[in-house]
Amino acid sequence: MRAQAENRHPDLEAACKHLLSSGGKRVRPALALLTGGMLAGDQERLITLAAAIEMLHTATLVHDDLIDGALLRRGIATLNSQWSPAATVLTGDFIFSTAARLAAETNSVAVMRLFSETLSTIVNGEITQLFTSRGLASRENYEQRIYAKTASLFELATASAALLSPVSAETVETARSFGNAIGMAFQIVDDVLDFTGEQITVGKPVASDLRQGLITLPALYYLELVPDDPDMAQLLSGNHAGEALIQRLVHSIRVSGATRRAMAEAEAHIAQAHAILGGFPDGVHRRALEDLADYFVRREL
Amino acid sequence: MRAQAENRHPDLEAACKHLLSSGGKRVRPALALLTGGMLAGDQERLITLAAAIEMLHTATLVHDDLIDGALLRRGIATLNSQWSPAATVLTGDFIFSTAARLAAETNSVAVMRLFSETLSTIVNGEITQLFTSRGLASRENYEQRIYAKTASLFELATASAALLSPVSAETVETARSFGNAIGMAFQIVDDVLDFTGEQITVGKPVASDLRQGLITLPALYYLELVPDDPDMAQLLSGNHAGEALIQRLVHSIRVSGATRRAMAEAEAHIAQAHAILGGFPDGVHRRALEDLADYFVRREL
Repeated sequence: MRAQAENRHPDLEAACKHLLSSGGKRVRPALALLTGGMLAGDQERLITLAAAIEMLHTATLVHDDLIDGALLRRGIATLNSQWSPAATVLTGDFIFSTAARLAAETNSVAVMRLFSETLSTIVNGEITQLFTSRGLASRENYEQRIYAKTASLFELATASAALLSPVSAETVETARSFGNAIGMAFQIVDDVLDFTGEQITVGKPVASDLRQGLITLPALYYLELVPDDPDMAQLLSGNHAGEALIQRLVHSIRVSGATRRAMAEAEAHIAQAHAILGGFPDGVHRRALEDLADYFVRREL
Repeated sequence: MRAQAENRHPDLEAACKHLLSSGGKRVRPALALLTGGMLAGDQERLITLAAAIEMLHTATLVHDDLIDGALLRRGIATLNSQWSPAATVLTGDFIFSTAARLAAETNSVAVMRLFSETLSTIVNGEITQLFTSRGLASRENYEQRIYAKTASLFELATASAALLSPVSAETVETARSFGNAIGMAFQIVDDVLDFTGEQITVGKPVASDLRQGLITLPALYYLELVPDDPDMAQLLSGNHAGEALIQRLVHSIRVSGATRRAMAEAEAHIAQAHAILGGFPDGVHRRALEDLADYFVRREL
């Protein structure tokens, strides 16, 4: 990934280094490598694929943080907090192009097709979030949102890895559904951590979604449990929600049991992921994927 | 191209329609279709390629106009003049993803590879322009800039069309060099029109580059002819250049013969393009490409 920005403009190289320095969990590339390993895929092309997926993810984060005006990501300063919007837009574009170049290096038209479709899904989801989702308490909207935002990229990781492996179209489809299950779980847990986590472990301010008027699964369950909370009503009305209101709501949601219900839903997705994995060849890669799936519902709780 | 935004968020569909409504000359798709036609390429895939190239071009314009704060493009309002920066960034991203999806539909890994490399070149050029080029009077910088901005995409059009045709790698390279020659000419003429054209024909304000401190070929020739113009010195120093100064400079450059010299350089590129075309199979496509090349140095002058 680091090598991709070499011989480009020095400021661009510096920006790419900064973005990669934060590390991050690298969950998506791990998923691609393990799925491909499990299916006896070509190692060299899987590594290229894994880098392509992480770069695509990074590019969407750069534009996302610019749009949200986020200051922190993975515990370090976002690009937009230090650079002009112009430079941030272009750096994101450059990283998109890098992801596309790496995807092309897999030499698989099917992989590149999936890549471009996934990018369309992600961006269409962001536009829907921007124009439609704020202040909307809808399970359908939530599920579409977390699919576009997270599960689609997890699907890309597992399905593309299968495409680079000597397996049938049916197995590619099964790999995709595995990616979908753990992707949905991963985002639900992220949304729970947004309520239960501390800034220090999550790497960004608590209740960042709620502050933007985005209703995630814990808030949806809370609305079922306590339909008439005036704080929630005010938030959904789109009127200004001050810090005191947000703090009260976060506390109410935490103690209501709503976050536990959301976690149970994430665990159901993980159970489904385990069931799918059961049909794949046993071995070190499958066991690592099982551990990874379990880790998704246990991280920092 | 219009079909690509169907079934997406209504605002996204509206934005894409608006962008496509302006028409534009569609020079890049014409180039791809004619080059592919001349080389007996597959018609169906060439049409997909042509749409992919125009979409890639459109996506870069959307982000470019946002960065420059441009209000007009092709004589109609830019997206950023009516939409928020967030929506504009995402619409550009969506059009990038559309270009990538169409490129994938050509089913050629070589084409997709060229696509992603061209996007890297274009974006790296924009970042260089943002950080380095303003106030810089350098022929090397100018040539790199117009290659990244324009000629690289013309190369993509002609080389990709050749890649979708039953021709040798050598012919692909020749097609690429044809695209380069007319691409360089096209941008030089654009830069001349920025001085000699009227807003009504160019579709954007006169001397827009100069106002941004970007030194194009006519200004470079003017610096050779009149090395000690105090207006030019002030512009290059990066100090504020008011409207009166810009108007004086535009007039001085127009009457100095600098724009004629720049045009002569564009014509030399077109002569080279004709020489390259001479080696290709004669017929209706080649003659149309010859006419197109001639049109590039004659439009609205």
